[in-house]
Amino acid sequence: VTALRTAARTHLLLHAHGPLTAGAAEDSLWPLPQSLRTSRRQLQLAPDRFQLVHGAGSSAGPGCGILYYEYIFGQSRWRSPGRQWPPLRRELSQLQVVITAPEPGCDSYPRLASSEACEYPAGSRLPRGAVCWAAFLVNESFIYDFPRFAHRGILLDTSRHYLPLKSILTNLDAMAFNKFNVLHWHIVDDQSFPYQSMYFPELSNKGAYSYNHIYTPTDVRLVIEYARLRGIRVIPEFDTPGHTQSWGKGQKDLLTPCYNGEQPSGSFGPINPIWNSTYDFMNKFFKEISSVFPDDYIHLGGDEVSFDCWKSNPDVKDFMKEQGFGIDYAKLESYYIQKILDIVSSYNKGYMVWQEVFDNKLKPDTVVEVWMANNYAHELSSVTQAGFTAILAAPWYLDYISYGQDWKKYYSVEPRNFPGSEKQKKLLIGGEACLWGEFVDATNLTPRLWPRASAVGERLWSSSNVTDLQDAYKRLSNHRCRMLR
Amino acid sequence: VTALRTAARTHLLLHAHGPLTAGAAEDSLWPLPQSLRTSRRQLQLAPDRFQLVHGAGSSAGPGCGILYYEYIFGQSRWRSPGRQWPPLRRELSQLQVVITAPEPGCDSYPRLASSEACEYPAGSRLPRGAVCWAAFLVNESFIYDFPRFAHRGILLDTSRHYLPLKSILTNLDAMAFNKFNVLHWHIVDDQSFPYQSMYFPELSNKGAYSYNHIYTPTDVRLVIEYARLRGIRVIPEFDTPGHTQSWGKGQKDLLTPCYNGEQPSGSFGPINPIWNSTYDFMNKFFKEISSVFPDDYIHLGGDEVSFDCWKSNPDVKDFMKEQGFGIDYAKLESYYIQKILDIVSSYNKGYMVWQEVFDNKLKPDTVVEVWMANNYAHELSSVTQAGFTAILAAPWYLDYISYGQDWKKYYSVEPRNFPGSEKQKKLLIGGEACLWGEFVDATNLTPRLWPRASAVGERLWSSSNVTDLQDAYKRLSNHRCRMLR
Repeated sequence: VTALRTAARTHLLLHAHGPLTAGAAEDSLWPLPQSLRTSRRQLQLAPDRFQLVHGAGSSAGPGCGILYYEYIFGQSRWRSPGRQWPPLRRELSQLQVVITAPEPGCDSYPRLASSEACEYPAGSRLPRGAVCWAAFLVNESFIYDFPRFAHRGILLDTSRHYLPLKSILTNLDAMAFNKFNVLHWHIVDDQSFPYQSMYFPELSNKGAYSYNHIYTPTDVRLVIEYARLRGIRVIPEFDTPGHTQSWGKGQKDLLTPCYNGEQPSGSFGPINPIWNSTYDFMNKFFKEISSVFPDDYIHLGGDEVSFDCWKSNPDVKDFMKEQGFGIDYAKLESYYIQKILDIVSSYNKGYMVWQEVFDNKLKPDTVVEVWMANNYAHELSSVTQAGFTAILAAPWYLDYISYGQDWKKYYSVEPRNFPGSEKQKKLLIGGEACLWGEFVDATNLTPRLWPRASAVGERLWSSSNVTDLQDAYKRLSNHRCRMLR
Repeated sequence: VTALRTAARTHLLLHAHGPLTAGAAEDSLWPLPQSLRTSRRQLQLAPDRFQLVHGAGSSAGPGCGILYYEYIFGQSRWRSPGRQWPPLRRELSQLQVVITAPEPGCDSYPRLASSEACEYPAGSRLPRGAVCWAAFLVNESFIYDFPRFAHRGILLDTSRHYLPLKSILTNLDAMAFNKFNVLHWHIVDDQSFPYQSMYFPELSNKGAYSYNHIYTPTDVRLVIEYARLRGIRVIPEFDTPGHTQSWGKGQKDLLTPCYNGEQPSGSFGPINPIWNSTYDFMNKFFKEISSVFPDDYIHLGGDEVSFDCWKSNPDVKDFMKEQGFGIDYAKLESYYIQKILDIVSSYNKGYMVWQEVFDNKLKPDTVVEVWMANNYAHELSSVTQAGFTAILAAPWYLDYISYGQDWKKYYSVEPRNFPGSEKQKKLLIGGEACLWGEFVDATNLTPRLWPRASAVGERLWSSSNVTDLQDAYKRLSNHRCRMLR
């Protein structure tokens, strides 16, 4: 874990309070830390002198900065040269952060196995309220904190609607505020292919909504680095063999031609699993993806494959016979998936998949994402019984909207509430709030996702006994105001 | 009707088309005009030379400007001094607008009875597409247009959440794009009293969320003028006797003290209808409102009055006896409402009311707003049978959200589909899309209201036979892009 990363996990709360909204620190902590002791002793701090520094024994290298000064005090307006704060009584000049993770330096990427625990030595204090410009107050506090689940993701879908870079970066800021640590980037789908490939530039040239609606290699690097500095992994999803209509526009002979009786109908189905050229393409394509995205995992999709087109195609039918698949097209799907898994494994990447894929021969470190709302507890049970690691998305499809405070519904989900042994429960490593893009673009992304996703954020971070809706409401209201500032 | 106003009603469509999105003018008209003839003959126009002018015979005075140059061409970027358009073939240099309404000049306010019909002489043309900067294209066209309903409103609620001035002005722009002509400003309610009264400044001093969350007299004038220039009336709603908790904070002895048995409970109910001081206050208050808001109408609310507090109060019970009301508190409500109606009438204002009020003695020009979703057709029938003018809000509560394209539901409402004679049908003069503010503030107002409200806009403007959902989808998609630009 890097110093930058741990800093992203701190609970430094400071309110630009007017007299109307003063409140205790505990009223606005989100997500609630695992352990918090706050004393009544108050200290003052001056933004132009206050520093976040590494404490003695911290394993962070000397060059490791700590982000989030601006998250606390706002856009550097306190550091303007003309402004100087008067001397304060009982001034707090430093907050010491001690990085206990063994890896020094700040250049590595966050990983699934990274420790996110952090603590503040007794000498450190938690900032707390502001009474006009002369008195940021802070209660002397001790915090020990760590996440309940290691995988806490937000899914953004940039295919149904393109999202400008700025929307993605803003969302990464919001994620950091809520201790989410995975951006599941559902980057391409049927509707468009905005990822600009270096090996296959025609994919976005032909498959994106326009030449402007793409993510260049520079854009992708920027997203990854912006996320890294906030302790957030970026896991791209390249969903196949279904959900691939846009791939076919820039890559000939990749999709299955559908037939009307004896004749090709002119439309296309899933990736064509019977040609060697398909796997040559995928081999090269995933070589690029493995190198562009530094995370240990790639999401390979695998959901909702329709067999209709495969069934209509005489060449596919012949292939089924050759392989001895009979008329079981699920076997053909497995055949394809297995080859893709092998390709990706050969580049030393782990994979995430949607739940449909889990009866294939998967590597033991595969993460299976459970998304179907119908009886997801049963599915969690099956997946973990088979020994696979699971994450839960089903109850957190935030693109489904309804009137009123639906955050309570998301908040009240207890992920481990499924039938299974303790060993099975441990295989559930987290969850994701998914914002599919059919009705989402830059105009409504932020207010649609936040603060609703904050409910999922606390559920995945805080202790399982943090369930009081009234207390959460109060803290979430204050947290929302802090995010808006 | 003023020239400014008629201009707000024109259908000048001009797309900053890239090559991918070129389309016919008919594909993006919204709301659809009553009559449109477009020829294939295309003309070009240069933004730096093109003018909107008054044609011969127009009743507009010479000083009447015409807005919307910028709505068409964008923020004056075409008029930068360094930029000069090359000579164009078949250039269109003017669009002539002929104002046929009898009132000359541009200083009057739009009114319910104002004519909004407009036409473009045969020599005028409808701008149409843009092919890079050198060719804004326009098809020679003839339009005759007028609204189906005279009252086409948007309700904004600035009490549940305060809306900054900028949000209101942006919304007025969106309204103009969709030919809405009434801003129903639900300005105060239980939760807060942001209207800064000149006679009673304590109402907002004590009743607003803070000293900053108010609308000063200057703010109100700005909203009214910004609306006027876009042909939009501003009808304020001061809802009484219920929905008035915030009034009680800054005005002592205005609300009814509730009782627990023999003792006042400390909480308050609706406006106290039994004291003369109540009517002295209302007399003065509505004198101010009548002068601040120039529209012929004030919305007086009158919805959802709970009798519980009145029933608990011994003084109210005595008053009921004196008046011979027995235990019929609806009579007390009527007693109060009638006095308020008389006060407002004395200032030569008409009134709008929510449907609960319509069994009072109302002036014949009263507009009754039907809002209850349950069997609203029956209510429209009753209201118009009683001879009152009605507007419909019930099926258009846009704060109720759900997944997917709910605009189709709003679009498919046929307002005149209620039991009644042709005379009754004529008493239905329009409708309103209502965005109540419980879950709406500046962060989500625009994407929540638009383009969903556009569906209501076309329903209220265009001919009753404009009902094709597929055609509407195509036009609305283009219209949304135009609004975003």
